[in-house]
This record gives sequence, structure tokens and C-alpha cells, in this order.
Amino acid sequence: MLNDSHAHILRLINQSGPLSRTELVSQLGVSKASMSALAADLIERGMLTEGEIVYGSGRPSVRLALTPASAFFIGVSLASDPFLVRVTDLSGTVITTAEMAASTTPEDIAAGIARCVDAILADGAIDRSKLAGIGIAIPGIVDARSAVCTRSTLLGWRDVPIGALVAQATGLATFIENDANALALGQHLFGDLRGSDACTVISVGDGIGCGHIIGGELHRGYRGSAGEIAHATIEPNGLPCKCGKRGCLDTLASVKAVANFAQEAKLAPGLAALDQAAAQGDQAAIAILHRAGAALGLAISQLVQIMDPERIVVALGEGPIDGLYARVLRQTVDANVMPDGAKQIDFAMMRLDQEAWAIGAASVAAGRAFFRL
Amino acid sequence: MLNDSHAHILRLINQSGPLSRTELVSQLGVSKASMSALAADLIERGMLTEGEIVYGSGRPSVRLALTPASAFFIGVSLASDPFLVRVTDLSGTVITTAEMAASTTPEDIAAGIARCVDAILADGAIDRSKLAGIGIAIPGIVDARSAVCTRSTLLGWRDVPIGALVAQATGLATFIENDANALALGQHLFGDLRGSDACTVISVGDGIGCGHIIGGELHRGYRGSAGEIAHATIEPNGLPCKCGKRGCLDTLASVKAVANFAQEAKLAPGLAALDQAAAQGDQAAIAILHRAGAALGLAISQLVQIMDPERIVVALGEGPIDGLYARVLRQTVDANVMPDGAKQIDFAMMRLDQEAWAIGAASVAAGRAFFRL
Repeated sequence: MLNDSHAHILRLINQSGPLSRTELVSQLGVSKASMSALAADLIERGMLTEGEIVYGSGRPSVRLALTPASAFFIGVSLASDPFLVRVTDLSGTVITTAEMAASTTPEDIAAGIARCVDAILADGAIDRSKLAGIGIAIPGIVDARSAVCTRSTLLGWRDVPIGALVAQATGLATFIENDANALALGQHLFGDLRGSDACTVISVGDGIGCGHIIGGELHRGYRGSAGEIAHATIEPNGLPCKCGKRGCLDTLASVKAVANFAQEAKLAPGLAALDQAAAQGDQAAIAILHRAGAALGLAISQLVQIMDPERIVVALGEGPIDGLYARVLRQTVDANVMPDGAKQIDFAMMRLDQEAWAIGAASVAAGRAFFRL
Repeated sequence: MLNDSHAHILRLINQSGPLSRTELVSQLGVSKASMSALAADLIERGMLTEGEIVYGSGRPSVRLALTPASAFFIGVSLASDPFLVRVTDLSGTVITTAEMAASTTPEDIAAGIARCVDAILADGAIDRSKLAGIGIAIPGIVDARSAVCTRSTLLGWRDVPIGALVAQATGLATFIENDANALALGQHLFGDLRGSDACTVISVGDGIGCGHIIGGELHRGYRGSAGEIAHATIEPNGLPCKCGKRGCLDTLASVKAVANFAQEAKLAPGLAALDQAAAQGDQAAIAILHRAGAALGLAISQLVQIMDPERIVVALGEGPIDGLYARVLRQTVDANVMPDGAKQIDFAMMRLDQEAWAIGAASVAAGRAFFRL
């Protein structure tokens, strides 16, 4: 088994790229002798490989790199239909893919994942002993420690011990996470936000999700419901929301909300079509995209004032990431963050594809099984 | 010098009250032998005292308690006029008090604090060797690590190394913190929020401050400006704010904002007077308190949706903590947090007196010098 120091070394190298033993000594604060022993362990287990040679003031030293094929992780996203399954290696690269029929029955899901695991192992490319765990991204609130989904409106779940069910069906260590948290962790460990220990990822699809990394770890909140900005009130006394409140961000800025507005205005649905219509001067399309972009921009500016993250990424599930929605969003953030802070926010848009949820889920397994997150 | 394990023991006992060696072993995850040695160290240094005997299944064990008079901390608040100085012991109890003339000149402040230290030591009640450090609460943004105030509008400061200046003038370890963070840390270590590792304190005085504790530590944010909810936009295109934006919480819910509204309505200023007028049915007073309470309530509900803290305390500098302002505030939080979450928030109001800033400042010294926060 890996101990905390092993995990810390793997984590540092994952975040910053290959490091020499000397560089690791200074970052870990252990003795040279301990570091040599730890590195020897990890090389013997096949997790680290000696690579590039660094010439400095003293003796040349060798940089240690992660060995991608030393461990594999299965990520399952229950946030799409069909459910997506991705297998990644220790560097976060997708090695193989699968799909399974969407279901809301925990037993069906556990059996389906078990069949996927068998299929993944069938061609012999991945050895079972190197499958380090399964991560599941769940659209709902989870207790990550007990691997119980406490509540999912989408799946109709209350207190479902999905982690234990899947572990039993597969014989593999199973970790669960809220889908937006999984997405954020995936970006932090293996994606655009690698290296940032203070970042927030906001996903805009049919719904709106948000995951925070603070101090290099997921911030789940006291009840596991941090990042529920979808139900932050943006327009007091605004449109009714399915949560029971009014004026939630979800009623204004999600892909579904925008589609509703488009339908009311008898416009072609979809952010791409609306963006085109707006570019051609359609006032209704312009108004819809302004309202949506401004709502999300306002929520993000409040998040910045409250939490002060280093970086924010908005992952957009539909439409152009440099269209009117994105421009209004960015302009609203700039206008509503304190002038001194606005200049300094590292704010970016990215494309959100369904696969990102499953890769995020695999990163949950990597984080928990390997990096001790 | 204390090591991390010593600090951890002191911290655990401070947070939960006296603990036996057996209880400490299970919470720290060290061996019984190590624990015995560590406890013996701390008893020898006079920081722990053997107290109550616990009878369990095995041998009776003795609970270890902090020795309040084993260390003293000086807290200085630059958030009031005059500046307040408080000396607390290891249990957070105020031992002695002083005041110094307010100033915006760093050198004057350093000299003033040095004179206060001399005065505090003059009567011989506190031994200099037991003065563990000085904490300074600053209305502005600070870099706690370098003890530099990067920006304070109130003091007119930019990059002032106030920590180094005070350390040089006094010969004592000096730590600085944003005033709202100091207040939150004081409540977390020694006040109403003792024992909660996930809480937020919001202060409402002339301005509005906010400090977060996450995972038992201050969350300062990437640029040290977490908790700047005073400048979260609550009314888009609302009243102009001194920060350059419009509709900031500060323009709506601070004591100063409420006083401005009262003046415009030709009402007696002050939250207490307004609350009385509202209780007698004065529509203008009711409207002012509603607008202010609703604005702060909305900001807090957004904070809850974004961060999901366990507990929130609003510290009110003026007026009744159970008046109309507080009632509207609470009602707005209830109405704007997701229904499932609203039931579970531990939300309370407290009286904010000026002394709390200085006690918070002293807790910063206790936290940094003793508890390794």
C-alpha cells in the first residue's frame, strides 16, 4: 500500500510535471535519505520512471516522471444518457471507453458497471491488478466519505449506498462524488486547471453545476452542498424554479432556461442558433442571451467577492464559447467584481462535452486511491 | 519551541475542552508512548494541567486542561477610534486593556503599540517571557504571511510592512490579519463558534466585513480578499458605491447606509431609533429596515448556496439583534436558501462591540504563535 509520503510525491509530480529528488526534498521537507528510499519504492512499484537529466550547480540529477500505465481508473458518469464510462491512466489520459444504458435503479447500475468492468478487462490490455478503483459522478448531493448519495432529484434517490453496491458488484474500490465536484477535480488534476490550488469550475448544461478546489482539495461544504449556485437567487421574486424558490440562477442561465426563453419568443432553440440570430440583429435573441449571460456573470462576481479564487472556468455545454452569452458573462463579471480584483481574475471559458463528466469521475478514483484527496 | 504535535494537542483541547491522554491518542493518531512524552513536555512547560479524573472501562484517566496563565497575547484593533488594545490569556479571557490614539502613520502606530506593551508589563502582573505575540486587526487587505498590509482605503495604506515595524518596535512576534478575519478567528477559537470548523462571521458596522473558517482554518482567498461581500452587487444598477461599482451590499445594509437612508427620510438616525419608529408603524422606517435586512439576507443566502458553511453568525454593531432588521434578514435567508438547506443552517445574531476586534486580534497571535493556524 502507498503511504501518505508516496501519495504526496505522486501528487506533486502530477501537478508540476517531472521533478528531481532534490526538488522533491525541498518541497516535501523530508531528508535526502528518506526521499531516496521513497523514490526507490515508487520506481520499484513501476509508478515512477527516471527521465530527463537536470544540470544544476551540483551533480546532475534525474527527473522522476509518473509512469502513465502503472495504474488505471474507471470513471462512470450518471449525469448523461446513456451513462458514459471512461478508463484513464495515471496521467489522466483516456485509454478505453464504454457506455451503459441509463437507469435510476441502484442495483441495475451496479450490475451494469460490473459488466463494463468485465468488458474492459476482456481484451487483456489492462491487468485487473492495475485497476485502482472506480469513481462515480452523481447528479446530486453525496456523502463522499460513506459513498452514499444522500439526495438526487434527477435519479429520485434518497440515501442510496451506491458506492457499497458497486464495490460489491465489481470487487473494486469505489468512490463517489457530486458530478460538478468530479468535473472540477478532473480539471484540477488532469485538465486546464492543473497546478491551481484555488479554483472553481462552473458547468452550464441543462442545469448549472459548480465545484470548488480550495487548498488543493475539493471543498464540499458542511452538508456536501457547496457549489449549489444553480439555486442562488439572482432575480428576487423572479421566475418560479423547480426547487420551490423564485429567481434562481437555474431559471435564467442554464441551457434549458435559454431554450425555454427561445421557445416563448418563437426562436430556434439552442445557444448556437440564438447566437447566430443575435449576430444578425434579432432583438429577442440578444435580450435572451443578455439576460442569461448577465445572470451567470452576477452569480460569478458574487462568488469572487465571497471566496476569492485564483481561477474560474465556465464549461459551456452548448453554443459558441466566444459568443454573445460568453461576452455578456465576462463583461458582467468585470463590472461587478471590485475594481482592484477584476483585473486579476483568471477567467476562462471551455467547451463542456459529456465525456468530461466521466473523466472527472475517473479522476475522483485517482484522487482518492492515489493522491489521498 | 513547540512542535506541530504540541500545537495540535493545545488546539484540540482548546476546541473541545479538557481531554484525557487516551482521548488525545485516538484523535491525534500517535502512539501512547509518544502521547505521554508530548503531554509531559506540555505539563513541564506549564501549558497543560492535570484536572478531572475520567472513569471508563479501563483504568481511570486524568483529563488535561489548558493552563490559561501560561501564555498571553496582545491584540490591537486598528478598526476603531481610539485603537483598542486587549491582552488575553491562553483561554481567550481578557486580562488587561489599553487604548491608544488612532493614527494612519505606520511609525506612530508601531511606537504607540510599543508604549502599550511597556505599560502592560509595568505592573509586573504579566511576565515578558510569557507574552507570546502581538496580533493586529487591520481594516484592509493583508498578506498575512509577510505581515504586509497590501491595501487599506480607511488607513490610506498600500504595501505597508506594519508587522515588521511593530515587531522591531516591540521585540515581540507580530502577526497581522484583516479585521473581519480576526473577528472570525476570535469567535472560532474562543467565542460563540468554538468547535465549528466550517463557519462564517459577518460584521455589520459602518462597513460590512466577513471572515470564513474552512477546515478549521481561516480562508483568506487567493489575493487575501475572500469575504469582501460588502462589495457584492445586490441591486444591479443600484446606488453608487465608493468602490466605483453600483448596488454593493455596503450601500444598502451597513450601519452607515441605513443612517443615510434615515437622514433622507428625516428620521432619527441609528438602528435602535429606526427600529422603534418601525415598531410604531412608521412606513419609512419599516421600508429602510426591510431594504437593509433583505439585502444582507440575500447576500448571505448566496454565500450559503456557494459555500455551504455549518454556522453563520451576524455580529451587529448597533440596534437590537432581535429587531426588524434581524427579522427581515433571517426571513430573507430562509426564503432564498434551497428549501432542504434552509432548515439546517445554524444562523445566529450577536452583539458586536468594538472590543471584539481587539480580542480577535489577540486570537490571531494565539492562533499563529500557539495553534499553528
